[in-house]
Amino acid sequence: MKLTYVPARELERVRSLKGSPAERCAAFADACRLNTLSMIMEAGSGHIGSSFSAMDIVAWLHLQEMDARGADPRDLYFSSKGHDAPGLYSVLIGLGVLDAALLRKLRRLDGLPGHPDIATPHAVTNTGSLGMGISKAKGMVREARLAGRPRRVFVLTGDGELQEGQLWESLQGAVNQRMHEICMIVDHNRMQSDTWVEKVSSLGELEAKFRAFGWFVRRCDGHDLEAIGAVMREFAAVSDRPKALIADTVKGKGVRAMENTALGEDELYRFHSGAPGQDAYRSGVEELSARLRARVPGLALEEVEAADRQPPQGERMVAAYSQALVALGRERPDLTVLDADLMLDCGLIPFRENFPERFIECGIAEQDMVSQAGALALRGRLPIVHSFACFLSTRPNEQIYNNATELTKVIYVGSLAGLLPAGPGHSHQSVRDISALAAMPGLTLIEPSCEAEVGLALRYCVAEAKQSCYLRLVSIPCEVPYRLPAGYRLQRGRGVTLRPGKSVLAIGYGPVLLPQAWHAAGLLAERHGIELEVVNLPWLNEVDADWLRAAVSGRTHLFTLDNHYVDGGQGQMLLARLGELGLSQPPRCTRIGVRSIPACGQNAEVLRAHGLDAAAIAAAIASAMGR
Amino acid sequence: MKLTYVPARELERVRSLKGSPAERCAAFADACRLNTLSMIMEAGSGHIGSSFSAMDIVAWLHLQEMDARGADPRDLYFSSKGHDAPGLYSVLIGLGVLDAALLRKLRRLDGLPGHPDIATPHAVTNTGSLGMGISKAKGMVREARLAGRPRRVFVLTGDGELQEGQLWESLQGAVNQRMHEICMIVDHNRMQSDTWVEKVSSLGELEAKFRAFGWFVRRCDGHDLEAIGAVMREFAAVSDRPKALIADTVKGKGVRAMENTALGEDELYRFHSGAPGQDAYRSGVEELSARLRARVPGLALEEVEAADRQPPQGERMVAAYSQALVALGRERPDLTVLDADLMLDCGLIPFRENFPERFIECGIAEQDMVSQAGALALRGRLPIVHSFACFLSTRPNEQIYNNATELTKVIYVGSLAGLLPAGPGHSHQSVRDISALAAMPGLTLIEPSCEAEVGLALRYCVAEAKQSCYLRLVSIPCEVPYRLPAGYRLQRGRGVTLRPGKSVLAIGYGPVLLPQAWHAAGLLAERHGIELEVVNLPWLNEVDADWLRAAVSGRTHLFTLDNHYVDGGQGQMLLARLGELGLSQPPRCTRIGVRSIPACGQNAEVLRAHGLDAAAIAAAIASAMGR
Repeated sequence: MKLTYVPARELERVRSLKGSPAERCAAFADACRLNTLSMIMEAGSGHIGSSFSAMDIVAWLHLQEMDARGADPRDLYFSSKGHDAPGLYSVLIGLGVLDAALLRKLRRLDGLPGHPDIATPHAVTNTGSLGMGISKAKGMVREARLAGRPRRVFVLTGDGELQEGQLWESLQGAVNQRMHEICMIVDHNRMQSDTWVEKVSSLGELEAKFRAFGWFVRRCDGHDLEAIGAVMREFAAVSDRPKALIADTVKGKGVRAMENTALGEDELYRFHSGAPGQDAYRSGVEELSARLRARVPGLALEEVEAADRQPPQGERMVAAYSQALVALGRERPDLTVLDADLMLDCGLIPFRENFPERFIECGIAEQDMVSQAGALALRGRLPIVHSFACFLSTRPNEQIYNNATELTKVIYVGSLAGLLPAGPGHSHQSVRDISALAAMPGLTLIEPSCEAEVGLALRYCVAEAKQSCYLRLVSIPCEVPYRLPAGYRLQRGRGVTLRPGKSVLAIGYGPVLLPQAWHAAGLLAERHGIELEVVNLPWLNEVDADWLRAAVSGRTHLFTLDNHYVDGGQGQMLLARLGELGLSQPPRCTRIGVRSIPACGQNAEVLRAHGLDAAAIAAAIASAMGR
Repeated sequence: MKLTYVPARELERVRSLKGSPAERCAAFADACRLNTLSMIMEAGSGHIGSSFSAMDIVAWLHLQEMDARGADPRDLYFSSKGHDAPGLYSVLIGLGVLDAALLRKLRRLDGLPGHPDIATPHAVTNTGSLGMGISKAKGMVREARLAGRPRRVFVLTGDGELQEGQLWESLQGAVNQRMHEICMIVDHNRMQSDTWVEKVSSLGELEAKFRAFGWFVRRCDGHDLEAIGAVMREFAAVSDRPKALIADTVKGKGVRAMENTALGEDELYRFHSGAPGQDAYRSGVEELSARLRARVPGLALEEVEAADRQPPQGERMVAAYSQALVALGRERPDLTVLDADLMLDCGLIPFRENFPERFIECGIAEQDMVSQAGALALRGRLPIVHSFACFLSTRPNEQIYNNATELTKVIYVGSLAGLLPAGPGHSHQSVRDISALAAMPGLTLIEPSCEAEVGLALRYCVAEAKQSCYLRLVSIPCEVPYRLPAGYRLQRGRGVTLRPGKSVLAIGYGPVLLPQAWHAAGLLAERHGIELEVVNLPWLNEVDADWLRAAVSGRTHLFTLDNHYVDGGQGQMLLARLGELGLSQPPRCTRIGVRSIPACGQNAEVLRAHGLDAAAIAAAIASAMGR
């Protein structure tokens, strides 16, 4: 695959173009768009639409407005939404403050993470989970004031992001403290993950809202650089309150086919988070480079050869979930689905199409969603609540507890669970959710190991479980080397052997680590003559004592496998229950799982880096057994 | 102690008084105030100020406005703040829909819980943790619409409560769905826990805010019953949007000495959550009964004898913390304290007085507070973040994780930790916090066992710890029968023997269960000849393997003690680590801790009900040992 980049020397030329600041900045923004597009193409994923809509603003702030360079700059800038990280990286590379070699390392181990992280030079704070930006800016202003060195803080937010309660929670305090140092810029591209903000959860009168909260508000075309400049001059004169610019932008701005203005009312936007197809990429490069060439005489672009991306193969838990949900929706008229702006990623579109009246789109408002679900359950319905596991287990954690104390039944479904995909980075890698939910009274945590088990698990949650359930779903396609036995059904707290073995037992769950353990068993047999039995225990926070006693009987070693932190994972629960069995000859126990903050990178390299691929698991088992 | 109640037959007379609805309702409200005051006096705690400010509104809604009786009422009412539960109970008893015998059972086991719970007849939903009310109302409206039986939902909120982000997160969706069925009434008494809302975190222009969110807004005197009636008539005619009434009220309304209008600008309000003193109680009864008698000829009040409350004795962790914090504040100019409207309960007033510039009051806005703290830490300060453990570990759970991924150092201090006090009920009883935080990367969880250890623990967090810490503090006074050895200091992951024993070991933490275990040891020695060793391990999510190996060496039995759910508690962590030691003769292990949703009641009865007092612990140990 051939990719086109604007090399460092040409970026420098663009920065020094003659002409008005606005003209120079427009060319710079397009150069950065081209690099962003290629970075995302090479990485295989990343947020084009959001990077492009914000690009003119980000370029203008960095070229014209801010003093943000050096070790102790006067101005601080960060993106609260964080999804536009590739765009910001391109700008920082364009300014020469980030190494141009990093263009080729988006979403790679030790490269540029999918969402901002302070490990990257010039990154100010970690973002990617939404709504935290103004709170953070307030902390930065507090510190600057305490230090007696006033600083301005520029914060970019999304518009969908404004659905998060924390954003509104944070606004008033900035006014009460007269934090004129804060400038919030809303990248108002009118779209969130899948579709129009207006269709998901309208923001209403945004200007009136910010004004009612006491902010100084302006609105302008976010691609009109002179207008942005004029607003910034106006802001500079306001010294008694924080300022908000609502910048009207176009998602995907700069490549016509990627612009949301080309979108029909009912279409889903296709350039939110994935890499484009080859054709869309090539025509994007052509459009951007033609415009650039017209502005930069003799522009020399760089063509590089990149590895072709293989389309991912394997079983898809979310697709299986999607099917099972529709089937159960037919059987159960009380079943009601709630979503927090992830209907595509959570597999909810078929349900919505079949049962529109029972589909509740809550927007990016997880706390509101969970409390609504609690009330639905109180009034006799069966709510099924969806988001990514990282958000669902944490943002509305207290709301889930509040529901739990009502002894109603609510089903929570967290997708994107576990270490992989590793591209988005730690804000999206959910490896704390079992721990965060394990002590929720009356909540059963389940992770299915393959497509077939997904349907069984959802049916268990809906039809059999007396209490609330949390269904943990891996979102990446997984090559699954095992099959569940014929007639298999979920039995509370009991596991099932996927690959028979002898004195050495591994217990785990889910389609990421069980396949690795299965292959590790092959390696162990081949290299060490160890016959590892691999058992799938889909129950994450409970185990049947009799089953466990029988499962470990005659075993010399037990290994637990967590696609989660070892702390608070299934392994910890299992070992504790084992200790209570009072066995005279318990097996030696070793927990295998995540032990550090999840790395960002390609899936295979991150699995390896965390010691969780088949080879590393086999090595850990052999080592624990003294081989 | 003599208490005065308005008995059921007299409440019925008050309800049937001649005169205008407003006159009748005013008398009814005062009768309910008198009962509320006596209930709280008898219970020893409860929220007088909030119950009284809302009383006229609640009485009017129930007497004049709503059809809320019967098994399937047309209208639903609940208090989102939930703190005014005693006031609502009095109204429901006054209406004859709750048994009058319950007047004597506030905050007692199987009585009326400190905050609303649906186990109480006519309770609509569980509240007490703030900001969830409109979300829940939306769920109720959704269900009613799906069922084709429209219902009105009346939701009372506090004004301090409006600082919570979830409230704002929930507003827009109600407008987008044209939920005219929802009527929010803000009990705008201008005070939150300790002092004026304006001083904590001003709400700004409240009417403008609700209007900007698209709500139909009215404002009136919340003690002017005719004005409330007029607004309700106006609301009834609005059928295209939700409605909000900002009701200006007086906290403590009805007893002059308890009204906030009697309060100086800088005074703390004394009737937020505790029982009044005897004198304040008597004069309150006199004032209310005099006014009642003037309205209700021949009113016969009931005088009952109630048990005198014993002032609680023992060591006070929060007071010790308060002292230690000031001392460290002197040594460390980077130390910066953040609070979420609990400065009195969290022991922060001395710090605020000594270092006002380093004290940041965030209001009831835990997510905003935690993200501000993260930014302060990024910029080189040492933030110490405070709230009750139940809120701090859950509401900003994702924000704590975001901070953790930045590898900065933040100290989190959660007070009101554990099962006790049991009076407020499960919204405030923090028995999930260890689990919710245990897998937070780089976060060390510590609970001190006595006043002396509090100072050592805070010093460890500030001066020794390389990473972030969570300090878990019990808030009730505790009689501590042990002393730490001379020269004791905290050593990471290692415990200390409080009472020597032989082959039977109990490991626990904190001043609630360790004293119970200490006394249990006495009972076991006396009754069974079992010599139980009691060990304090203040480290909640880690243990030193060498120390653990030595501690269990030669023991036949290990008991772990969790003032927390057994799931995800210290015991689970300990048993898992023990399993990994590969001991040839491990002790038999039993976990003791909370296993069901925390009961509400007096501390001693709740400890007993959960099997966690000395007698129950001794019995559990004897039983596990076959005695």
